[in-house]
Amino acid sequence: MSELLLTVTDQKLLRFAYEQAVISYRQDGVPVGAVLADGNEILSYGHNQRVQNQDPTAHGEIDCLRNGKRRVRYDGLTLYTTLSPCMMCAGAIIQFGISRVVVGENRNFAGNIDFLRSHGVEVVVVDDEDCIDLMANFIHERPDLWDEDIAGRTYV
Amino acid sequence: MSELLLTVTDQKLLRFAYEQAVISYRQDGVPVGAVLADGNEILSYGHNQRVQNQDPTAHGEIDCLRNGKRRVRYDGLTLYTTLSPCMMCAGAIIQFGISRVVVGENRNFAGNIDFLRSHGVEVVVVDDEDCIDLMANFIHERPDLWDEDIAGRTYV
Repeated sequence: MSELLLTVTDQKLLRFAYEQAVISYRQDGVPVGAVLADGNEILSYGHNQRVQNQDPTAHGEIDCLRNGKRRVRYDGLTLYTTLSPCMMCAGAIIQFGISRVVVGENRNFAGNIDFLRSHGVEVVVVDDEDCIDLMANFIHERPDLWDEDIAGRTYV
Repeated sequence: MSELLLTVTDQKLLRFAYEQAVISYRQDGVPVGAVLADGNEILSYGHNQRVQNQDPTAHGEIDCLRNGKRRVRYDGLTLYTTLSPCMMCAGAIIQFGISRVVVGENRNFAGNIDFLRSHGVEVVVVDDEDCIDLMANFIHERPDLWDEDIAGRTYV
């Protein structure tokens, strides 16, 4: 099996997203982080805020897009996320017209990779060990909170 | 053609959503409103906050779900929205497992009615004249803001 090749920018920005996820984990929140970038320029970043803000819509990707404030177009941008996007976040990526998504891992949650690709989004799945371990630990420790965050819908 | 039959609760709660849209319109915002209900009990409501909060993710449906704060399940609930849901909002409805959606109109924006139905969501499209007129006026007056709110993607 050939190894996935990532640019240095991709590696750095996925790591940045991972650090956002760690911040949320340390706040007893859901450990998913995200970064929106134009090439190597970070436009915004965020992490899941369900626990912190009592906000069920604040998945990592949504929090990141929210923090980016208003923008007319998202063409050419890359969204980095530590976990494969749920249907809400995949829908946001498609509706906003984000060109490319780098996904830390899709082992703990399959998400909607094919759905994104079928709408023309370029998706890179990294299978990052740190992202996998962080999420696996969280799901093991807080199955109730994880179940709540996806409303029990592992697949939709 | 047979006329659509709505319960009194459906009529009242769609009207409530419309009043939310009017509030946003008067604030120079995007005039889409939403209500989340369990039968005739209103759980939360909201409206598009793109302009008001500089938040691109705050479509009417997302703002309403956010205002509802944390919840373990959404089965059996109805979401009322003045305009057919975009892909982000349709994705949220599916991921959260909301059972039923009452849509004020889908003439000004087709949205994702079939997509919702294909995922088991019951969708009622009302074709409400007040919802149609409010949105048509907004799109005529602020084509730039409307284009920004859907990132130019009328269909996705």
